[in-house]
Amino acid sequence: MIENNFVIRDVKFFKSTGEIETANIFVSGDKISKITKGAVDGEKIIDGKNKFATPGLVNAHTHASMTLLRSYSDDKALMDWLQKDIWPVEDKMTRKDIYWGAALAAVEMIRGGTTAFADMYGPCMEEVAKVVEESGMRGSLCQGLISFADGEKKLAANVELYKNFHGAADGRITVMFGPHAIYTCPPDYLKKVAAEAQKLGAQIHMHMNETQTEIDDCLKAYGKRPFEVVNETGLFELGMLAAHCVWLSDEEFEIIKRKKIRVAHNPGSNMKLASGICPATKLLAQGVTVALGTDGASSNNNLDMLEEARLAALLAKVDTLNPLAVPAPQAIQMATENGAAALGLKNIGRLEEGCKADIVLWDMRGVEWQPNYNPASLLVYSANSSAADTVIVDGKILMEGRELKTLDEEKILAEFTACAERLTKN
Amino acid sequence: MIENNFVIRDVKFFKSTGEIETANIFVSGDKISKITKGAVDGEKIIDGKNKFATPGLVNAHTHASMTLLRSYSDDKALMDWLQKDIWPVEDKMTRKDIYWGAALAAVEMIRGGTTAFADMYGPCMEEVAKVVEESGMRGSLCQGLISFADGEKKLAANVELYKNFHGAADGRITVMFGPHAIYTCPPDYLKKVAAEAQKLGAQIHMHMNETQTEIDDCLKAYGKRPFEVVNETGLFELGMLAAHCVWLSDEEFEIIKRKKIRVAHNPGSNMKLASGICPATKLLAQGVTVALGTDGASSNNNLDMLEEARLAALLAKVDTLNPLAVPAPQAIQMATENGAAALGLKNIGRLEEGCKADIVLWDMRGVEWQPNYNPASLLVYSANSSAADTVIVDGKILMEGRELKTLDEEKILAEFTACAERLTKN
Repeated sequence: MIENNFVIRDVKFFKSTGEIETANIFVSGDKISKITKGAVDGEKIIDGKNKFATPGLVNAHTHASMTLLRSYSDDKALMDWLQKDIWPVEDKMTRKDIYWGAALAAVEMIRGGTTAFADMYGPCMEEVAKVVEESGMRGSLCQGLISFADGEKKLAANVELYKNFHGAADGRITVMFGPHAIYTCPPDYLKKVAAEAQKLGAQIHMHMNETQTEIDDCLKAYGKRPFEVVNETGLFELGMLAAHCVWLSDEEFEIIKRKKIRVAHNPGSNMKLASGICPATKLLAQGVTVALGTDGASSNNNLDMLEEARLAALLAKVDTLNPLAVPAPQAIQMATENGAAALGLKNIGRLEEGCKADIVLWDMRGVEWQPNYNPASLLVYSANSSAADTVIVDGKILMEGRELKTLDEEKILAEFTACAERLTKN
Repeated sequence: MIENNFVIRDVKFFKSTGEIETANIFVSGDKISKITKGAVDGEKIIDGKNKFATPGLVNAHTHASMTLLRSYSDDKALMDWLQKDIWPVEDKMTRKDIYWGAALAAVEMIRGGTTAFADMYGPCMEEVAKVVEESGMRGSLCQGLISFADGEKKLAANVELYKNFHGAADGRITVMFGPHAIYTCPPDYLKKVAAEAQKLGAQIHMHMNETQTEIDDCLKAYGKRPFEVVNETGLFELGMLAAHCVWLSDEEFEIIKRKKIRVAHNPGSNMKLASGICPATKLLAQGVTVALGTDGASSNNNLDMLEEARLAALLAKVDTLNPLAVPAPQAIQMATENGAAALGLKNIGRLEEGCKADIVLWDMRGVEWQPNYNPASLLVYSANSSAADTVIVDGKILMEGRELKTLDEEKILAEFTACAERLTKN
């Protein structure tokens, strides 16, 4: 295993400008130390021939342990799905389930070129932290907070999570606070969350404006729309990663811009659950950071960020009837640089000297990559995630030649399967 | 190589009812001879463990040789794309290009679980016929007919194609007539096409109502919408595979139903080119045969039918804001049974005793297939086409364990790359 001091030789790579260049990418410690042209000698070398290097993909909104519920309930109305199928099984989840569910998610994400993820779930988020630590990935974790389901206890757990794990694993783990949504957290509770988060300097990860029903219910309860209600709780002053943002009024657009809220667009989940279409093109045009997320595997049904990049590009075009909306390079930026920004990570998401070495090498030998006029187009519109060949985080190789280096896939699969069987037997 | 007399043992398979069952599938000659439960002995056996059997996927609308233009021009306005980039290169295409372009397409389609395709292109469609013959796939071929570009000569070529190839390769090749679209074929020319096709008993494959511009131009030129104009040419009496059908009036819905027109829905292409959304849910609800197609690789950018099935399912839900629209089993039916019906193929597209043995075995061992509560959901919403493990057409194995049995992938790749380089150098 080549680690922490090597060069990816003569590789086509995606620049943060959206252009593609061929060069040698040197990795020293946790960073990209230099990018040069010309011959390379006497170094540990990864051959870049037939490979395309991009920053690691960042999954800006997921619920990792929900892999346990993948394909358990599909093609149902939202409330049937949640109340009859998902919640009863979630109620049975133990510490062990959270761990093995997240471990399988980590295997899947690394195999698909994802290097970082923002996770909202719980209880026992420290189990997800353990998976982040062991896998070598980056994780921005938060306890999902629902006021009526042990609201105080969960808030205390989020505080503990922050104290114990924010900045852990060489900074690969960061912690936010996770008020679930306006329909599960009334304003008074949100104010408590804001107070606790503020004491610690923590940021917020929250579902916002996912469905029309959510908006209608909020208007009925508070006479205002979700962003207007949350705006009065102090949460937006702390830094907010807002998942979904499908239904937005003009006033809510203004709040998003003014409060520098970062949006996690989840095209796959929004399509599958028929939630609607996030106005990503308009948000991007107005300078908002729009990242991409998979949402949980029970509403997607995978954690494949390359698929989300494709869906984001395709959906933007058909939604605006403009074939120039979200071109391939922008879709890659959303899945990488914008993702890192959404998670509040610095010097991540770009292949530049001095940035963290979070890199994916995509194998371009498959027929779907031929002819190879434009690797960015091919990655977004033609390839699939099985092209992820080598995955590097913090300069450490997590997968090489599709072989995992940090996780025991066989053991994880066996333990995960046992958990799933136990959870879903009557 | 196990061929033409074997059993797929103890395999989960997709029934035409949409249900999933486990059984042994016996193949004799070109047919599924029986489907049984229980132990199997003393036969040539393919182990069905961890595999999911579906009918072969049918690509109901493509332009196979356009693989040569994949990633050559993306994220452009339609007319810029066609006039500045695509057409000038197409003008340079030779017989050799058509052959190698289609050969690479065949490699890609087999690797993705596609067993049959409807192809509209030309000149030299006999080269595509050669690829169908050699690859072992099924192809429904037609010469693309454009009145102002050698219209008479191309019509004669379509007649020759029919005479020489309809029913060839043990019936794996069928031939239709391919009037390109209303904006490239005025009514008088369409009537000529209808007359020639009728003499031979041939069916029709045509682009219909792809963009709003097409409708506007048609209304301007003829005072009627495309389906109304074509309805007066006699083409619909012959049996019609209509590609796209994005913008439809109520009157056009009625024509589609009355004339039993089969629709090839191309969600990926329609999204990428920002053409609009085919009202697939409404067409299906009214009993119309809606199949799926990739369109050409320059507007998709791949020939991945599993991706089209996913897009069809996701797009239907978000378009209708109904999470129950096009559930996973229906998406599989669209990609298989409806595809076969759209191509006019009998006893194909279903895993039933007496049907042709066109079968794909999907490898379910990847993490994205875990837990495995519902293989149909997993195939449509979670897996990608790299899970296609074994592909069988007419009882013959075209791929096994992802190894191609009929085509020389390495040679095809080399020849294809040389063609693409020659075509696109200045």
